[in-house]
Amino acid sequence: MNIRHVVESQQFTVPLLMRLFERTRTMEYIVKRGGTRDYDRSIMGTLFYKPSTRTRFSFESAMYRLGGRVLSTEQAREFSSEIQGETLEDTIRIIGHYCDVIVLRHHEEGGAKRAAAVSSVPVINAGDGEGGQHPTQALLDLYTIYNECNTLDGLSVALIGALDQGRTARSLAYLLGKFDRTKLYFIAPDEMQIKPDILEHLDKHDVAYELASNASGILPHVDVVYQTRINRERLLQRDIDLTPYNIDRAVLASMKADAIVMHPLPRSVEIDHAVDKDPRAAYFRQTQNGLTVRMALLTMLLDNY
Amino acid sequence: MNIRHVVESQQFTVPLLMRLFERTRTMEYIVKRGGTRDYDRSIMGTLFYKPSTRTRFSFESAMYRLGGRVLSTEQAREFSSEIQGETLEDTIRIIGHYCDVIVLRHHEEGGAKRAAAVSSVPVINAGDGEGGQHPTQALLDLYTIYNECNTLDGLSVALIGALDQGRTARSLAYLLGKFDRTKLYFIAPDEMQIKPDILEHLDKHDVAYELASNASGILPHVDVVYQTRINRERLLQRDIDLTPYNIDRAVLASMKADAIVMHPLPRSVEIDHAVDKDPRAAYFRQTQNGLTVRMALLTMLLDNY
Amino acid sequence: MNIRHVVESQQFTVPLLMRLFERTRTMEYIVKRGGTRDYDRSIMGTLFYKPSTRTRFSFESAMYRLGGRVLSTEQAREFSSEIQGETLEDTIRIIGHYCDVIVLRHHEEGGAKRAAAVSSVPVINAGDGEGGQHPTQALLDLYTIYNECNTLDGLSVALIGALDQGRTARSLAYLLGKFDRTKLYFIAPDEMQIKPDILEHLDKHDVAYELASNASGILPHVDVVYQTRINRERLLQRDIDLTPYNIDRAVLASMKADAIVMHPLPRSVEIDHAVDKDPRAAYFRQTQNGLTVRMALLTMLLDNY
Repeated sequence: MNIRHVVESQQFTVPLLMRLFERTRTMEYIVKRGGTRDYDRSIMGTLFYKPSTRTRFSFESAMYRLGGRVLSTEQAREFSSEIQGETLEDTIRIIGHYCDVIVLRHHEEGGAKRAAAVSSVPVINAGDGEGGQHPTQALLDLYTIYNECNTLDGLSVALIGALDQGRTARSLAYLLGKFDRTKLYFIAPDEMQIKPDILEHLDKHDVAYELASNASGILPHVDVVYQTRINRERLLQRDIDLTPYNIDRAVLASMKADAIVMHPLPRSVEIDHAVDKDPRAAYFRQTQNGLTVRMALLTMLLDNY
Repeated sequence: MNIRHVVESQQFTVPLLMRLFERTRTMEYIVKRGGTRDYDRSIMGTLFYKPSTRTRFSFESAMYRLGGRVLSTEQAREFSSEIQGETLEDTIRIIGHYCDVIVLRHHEEGGAKRAAAVSSVPVINAGDGEGGQHPTQALLDLYTIYNECNTLDGLSVALIGALDQGRTARSLAYLLGKFDRTKLYFIAPDEMQIKPDILEHLDKHDVAYELASNASGILPHVDVVYQTRINRERLLQRDIDLTPYNIDRAVLASMKADAIVMHPLPRSVEIDHAVDKDPRAAYFRQTQNGLTVRMALLTMLLDNY
Repeated sequence: MNIRHVVESQQFTVPLLMRLFERTRTMEYIVKRGGTRDYDRSIMGTLFYKPSTRTRFSFESAMYRLGGRVLSTEQAREFSSEIQGETLEDTIRIIGHYCDVIVLRHHEEGGAKRAAAVSSVPVINAGDGEGGQHPTQALLDLYTIYNECNTLDGLSVALIGALDQGRTARSLAYLLGKFDRTKLYFIAPDEMQIKPDILEHLDKHDVAYELASNASGILPHVDVVYQTRINRERLLQRDIDLTPYNIDRAVLASMKADAIVMHPLPRSVEIDHAVDKDPRAAYFRQTQNGLTVRMALLTMLLDNY
């Protein structure tokens, strides 16, 4: 049940998820106490071919709270000396001499898999390509639901927004489908609905779901509302108005008292700032969970290695 | 008398300044011994929306000498995901989960104040906007005078150069005005003289000052000569010659034996390199004080927090 | 026999090299044990005026394995405030207050020497200018030969490729010439042969060498094949085909059973990937040695300082 690399969310079985989440609770305790020094001889290499300071900070903070060190680059394209024709595989072989775990954000789908195939140290996929995977985001989303709802069984979850391209919504739907009596609602304009491959997967595993283009009848009944990021340029190109899908105080008033609102952040207008103070607004707690889930994951990889 | 955030130099009362300077002396002792490990569970986030490697290194070195860790970015604009419409406030809320103190350089005046208003961890302003504040520079300048002259009372201080835009000269004038029997000389071409708001403030607090466009009669009598940075482009635009205000060996020869020459650095031609070896050249010691003053400030914030 | 700065490979006498290599063996042992905390109060400043993530990571990993801290910039040009006219000397004087050792990559030949002349802390040259020095690369190359061949006396070494501009080949030829009964082969197209200054130096010190434009008669007899990097743009400009100089399985089959193939990396087509699995392919071990040689060098400088 050990994992060596974290490449895609499909790797995670329910028992492995539960083990990760138990360890995450320990990390919450450790963070409250200001961190540990247990991993003070470990070095994490953050190799980002595309800058993403938000994700990088979350991983680096996780490593620091464990007591470790960080080699950091947002200019990995220069590292890979692409002009000189070096392959990703060569770069990974070399960087494996300099650190104990590699966090890789690559611009090509499948980059993390290629890296894991040759790496002498564990590789964590921190996003590969536009249509690729970002498994730690999916894990922290799932943990947030688990932590807020105290269970992952029997939950009804509404995923809202531009679902056709939303990597986070897709991965989360996949992971939620592993749990008992899950009911998923995909709420989006028709031209932005979730793609058929996910629905086929859910059908195959007998996961209940509904598609809708209108949120108002659904949100009052769900346990979790997962709002996705707005890609403004894309909206403008396609002339679609997502305003009816925004979350504001009126929407909040219609929701259950113990439901939660999630968002992978950064947000724009899709969640009104007036929502922030409501205890059901879970998106900043979600960020906090990103830290502890990543700490838990790092220790699982470093302990095996 | 505790401070939670460092936003502007006006926050600092004389007792608070004295407490900071006492602590700075302790830090000098600690640096001589190679640093401490006392803060080895603390993380500082340097969030720079405009690169300033010099200031960043000073803060980061300060944190390292205290034993702490550093999350670092000079690409904070990318972090803030401005394209996606994220506010500075959201960014600060998120980053507060990743570190114990935020050092912020923002491109807009008032950025530090906005950040402090929502931050769950202390915020230090490392410069906000062109006309904004850079309080730690003012504090290290004041400490340098204190350390070199052994007092802050009864000093006569000449501020020279393009005073109208010099943030450092303005802040220093403000802080010096808090001490007894200060005499300030503002020496600049008429079109670059210090702005009236500072003079009004000095008038109101009965601080003695003089304006002059010629340095030669004044420099022989002052305790401190504070030369400011030259912005070459601006000089060219306005066709003004600042050469008569440069410090060279001849000027030095006219100065008192126990006077000092300061400069916020980097310098260009405004202080001749021949001046460097004179014991009165205090500008490299000033840099060193930047380290210890920032260490003292970090410990004050981290101890409260 | 102590060194204060590492500016050029000529500084290293045979006894100093042997001392460095002994220390490198200790570092291999330390790395296997996960590093040490002995230098946890030391700060290294990496001041790169030209980005080179590969070299930077190697130095930073070395410092972390020793327990130290790292101040890092790949935007040193901004640091030096060149627009404002600051000299390299001023920058080095300032940065010396922030760290205990400076690793400098400068864009001008002679930059490291200028820095060392004014620095209050040790300076390591991590490459200066196109035609300049990169002494730690030369040291790790020499250590790799020592480690793989168990001696540095009586070796025959073939250097292949565009030798006229290859900084690494030049420095290695220089260092190998210090040892007994060395035989060097310079294999390159005539228009890319090693420059006369190196040959004059070898003549003066009675080092045996041969020039050749064809590798096939030589490679079966040598102990070390040192393949250099290909600069594709340059090749295109000059319309030269280096393909006959590539190392593939056929070349490997002609080589001695205990010979080794080296390359400073990154490589392009000049070493076929099929060669990687042969135990004689030493180039990834060479990278690993970069870490331990740099650790050894850092401790020598920090211990003196």
